[in-house]
Amino acid sequence: MQYAVRGPIVIRAVEIEKELEKGVSKPFKNVIKANIGDAHAMGQKPITFIRQVLACVCNPLLTECGGFPSDVVEHAKTILRGCGGHSAGAYSQSTGIDVIRRHVAEYIEKRDGFPCDPENVILSGGASESIRNVLKMFIRRDVNKKTGVMIPIPQYPLYSATVEEFNLGQVGYYLHEEKNWSLEEEELERSYKESLKQYDTKVLCVINPGNPTGQDNIYAEGSKFHSFKKVINEMGAPYNKMELASFHSVSKGYMGECGMRGGYVEFFNLDPQVFVMFKKMISAKLCSTILGQVVMDTVVNPPKSGDPSYNQWLQEKTAVLDSLKKRAILVKEAYGSIEGIKCNEVQGAMYAFPQIELPSRAIETARSLNQEPDFFYAMKLLESTGVCIVPGSGFGQKQGTYHFRTTILPQTELMKEMLDRFKSFHMKFLEEYK
Amino acid sequence: MQYAVRGPIVIRAVEIEKELEKGVSKPFKNVIKANIGDAHAMGQKPITFIRQVLACVCNPLLTECGGFPSDVVEHAKTILRGCGGHSAGAYSQSTGIDVIRRHVAEYIEKRDGFPCDPENVILSGGASESIRNVLKMFIRRDVNKKTGVMIPIPQYPLYSATVEEFNLGQVGYYLHEEKNWSLEEEELERSYKESLKQYDTKVLCVINPGNPTGQDNIYAEGSKFHSFKKVINEMGAPYNKMELASFHSVSKGYMGECGMRGGYVEFFNLDPQVFVMFKKMISAKLCSTILGQVVMDTVVNPPKSGDPSYNQWLQEKTAVLDSLKKRAILVKEAYGSIEGIKCNEVQGAMYAFPQIELPSRAIETARSLNQEPDFFYAMKLLESTGVCIVPGSGFGQKQGTYHFRTTILPQTELMKEMLDRFKSFHMKFLEEYK
Repeated sequence: MQYAVRGPIVIRAVEIEKELEKGVSKPFKNVIKANIGDAHAMGQKPITFIRQVLACVCNPLLTECGGFPSDVVEHAKTILRGCGGHSAGAYSQSTGIDVIRRHVAEYIEKRDGFPCDPENVILSGGASESIRNVLKMFIRRDVNKKTGVMIPIPQYPLYSATVEEFNLGQVGYYLHEEKNWSLEEEELERSYKESLKQYDTKVLCVINPGNPTGQDNIYAEGSKFHSFKKVINEMGAPYNKMELASFHSVSKGYMGECGMRGGYVEFFNLDPQVFVMFKKMISAKLCSTILGQVVMDTVVNPPKSGDPSYNQWLQEKTAVLDSLKKRAILVKEAYGSIEGIKCNEVQGAMYAFPQIELPSRAIETARSLNQEPDFFYAMKLLESTGVCIVPGSGFGQKQGTYHFRTTILPQTELMKEMLDRFKSFHMKFLEEYK
Repeated sequence: MQYAVRGPIVIRAVEIEKELEKGVSKPFKNVIKANIGDAHAMGQKPITFIRQVLACVCNPLLTECGGFPSDVVEHAKTILRGCGGHSAGAYSQSTGIDVIRRHVAEYIEKRDGFPCDPENVILSGGASESIRNVLKMFIRRDVNKKTGVMIPIPQYPLYSATVEEFNLGQVGYYLHEEKNWSLEEEELERSYKESLKQYDTKVLCVINPGNPTGQDNIYAEGSKFHSFKKVINEMGAPYNKMELASFHSVSKGYMGECGMRGGYVEFFNLDPQVFVMFKKMISAKLCSTILGQVVMDTVVNPPKSGDPSYNQWLQEKTAVLDSLKKRAILVKEAYGSIEGIKCNEVQGAMYAFPQIELPSRAIETARSLNQEPDFFYAMKLLESTGVCIVPGSGFGQKQGTYHFRTTILPQTELMKEMLDRFKSFHMKFLEEYK
């Protein structure tokens, strides 16, 4: 099992940070971590409304001190009424707090224009936990053929790692790099048909537009978020009878509240008997963190126009998304201008996946060390500049191509510095191995 | 897979609560849930210090408002300095926040008088998550013989459910009911030797004194908490070279912060190569909730004598433990005085496991319905009184004996009412089936 965004390169980056703290001399003064979508770690400030609600839920006396806007106080009180003993210290049902599940369902209904039953919404510790729970339903002990799970290439390592851990079969379908990582029906058909020789393929994972499903952070002109549930409902039969599990999380978007571990899955058309087993399975984990559930609530049920917190909330949200959009453009332009690098437009989410043309001597050197060439490149980059990115091989790529994944999360000044360090390393690398 | 504390009886209890809300007429006005160790849900108030620290970590502006004691503020600031970007919204390492792991290690050292390396401490979302992660290391795909896992009977359903889910072998060893659920070496030997016919038995689970390991809530005269790590260290070789994983949680004790999902495992003598794999395995879950980690910190690093928060903290802690002690006695005396019920002294933790002598007609009726007799009893109790307990069969019991598990968590008045309802039901039941 591999989990590249927390793999050897990242482990080494943490070690280097500790070496720097101890005064070890390096050709750089800090490590810049562009390996994982961790916005707050890279300097993004939390949304005030979210944190005020959290503080009031943690310490309900604060709802009486007059120090918080009335909508924050009301929000916190509504949630506390839904908690056992009116405390965030009580377990919820394994499915989550009812009032929050209702708010999620209302949010989905409003987004799609199609009904959503709160009973079909299950809250979890981040979207990752729900994704793992859903994939777990496909584990088989009694059959020779593994269940095939179709995942895009490049993928997010959660999928490959979980597929491996659960003894499922990984079925990759390639996204079309030259067409801005778009998906073509033919490729889906090819991948599915080929997989049937080896697997009983039953699951199609779609990540839209990149990990994770972005609903707010879409930057490119003409691009927009498409809800899968809305689309299959609009397509009518037989599509609107297909089993669908959709996920959302508080970790990305404009919130970036990764450490809070809030997320949900909405099931649609799930076989009722399977659903009973699913609920039984998650009961062994008791419940996901109540405070993570609370953050999910603030995301699906934010202040409305006219509420005391609305203006500040909107201003903070807009500022984050505008800044991400600027950095998306900055990254694409900066990488695109470097010799031997191609970078698609960052249309949404918070990542770029540039292609590197590696000199054949570098490829041979890497192979002689029993390393993937892009791993070799990324490790050298880290050791000589402190810039931490993830080799494309951890995400999957067409054979013979090399990439790296970088987030666009370092704040603008740090990002510019990162790009400078990167460019100068890359030029020296090309020179050394040409 | 079964998980009795969240099983059919509990699901029905939740339904009945919803029926009562809708105005359905019942012979009782509320459901009393004594099925799960959920202190806050049963009216216990949170410890002020814990919630103040949490509020400051969630909303760091509160550290500047002057409204909180200085030790709370310092505590929150220390934790925030250990967070990525000084925000609880950033991921931690998968192992947890370093400064909190250090505090846990200091707490263990102080408790045991033996060294503890923070690198051996892994924070998790409650102790359950760590227990599941540790058991996961014993999954085998390539061998015919399952790994046997020795668990006490009665056990806690987390163990049986996880053993089943991971395809391990459950090896029960009986606790001696007549000797206050004590453990005898002979029985351990018997159980181990018998298990070898079927399994490759490698794991011994000890729950001390009852789920979960209680370090604070021990009530019986002459009883005290024994740290396993301390004991095996004092015993010397070969015991002090054995692999040990010890767990703790914020969910029980005097805190009862179940919904926060904080816990840890300390490894001792773990094979270094296995440890590397363990850390890799948990990296696919990214990290446990930061705020759960924060609560763990407040538990292992509480106010010290002389600190501004100390007196209130000590008073609140003592009040909770004193009240639990009173209820432990109340429960034992009340059940012990009912015809056909035997109840051991509740020496620690927050549960009783009384034995019921069921009339043979009741047993026959249950069997004819394809139900366990204690399940039949518990469901009737719930339907006619609203009292929700868990049948002993969900925890394991000697064949031919019947028990139920109840928490001692309802606050004193509610507890008295619960005992009254129980007694009058039990008498009618005996009458009906005699």
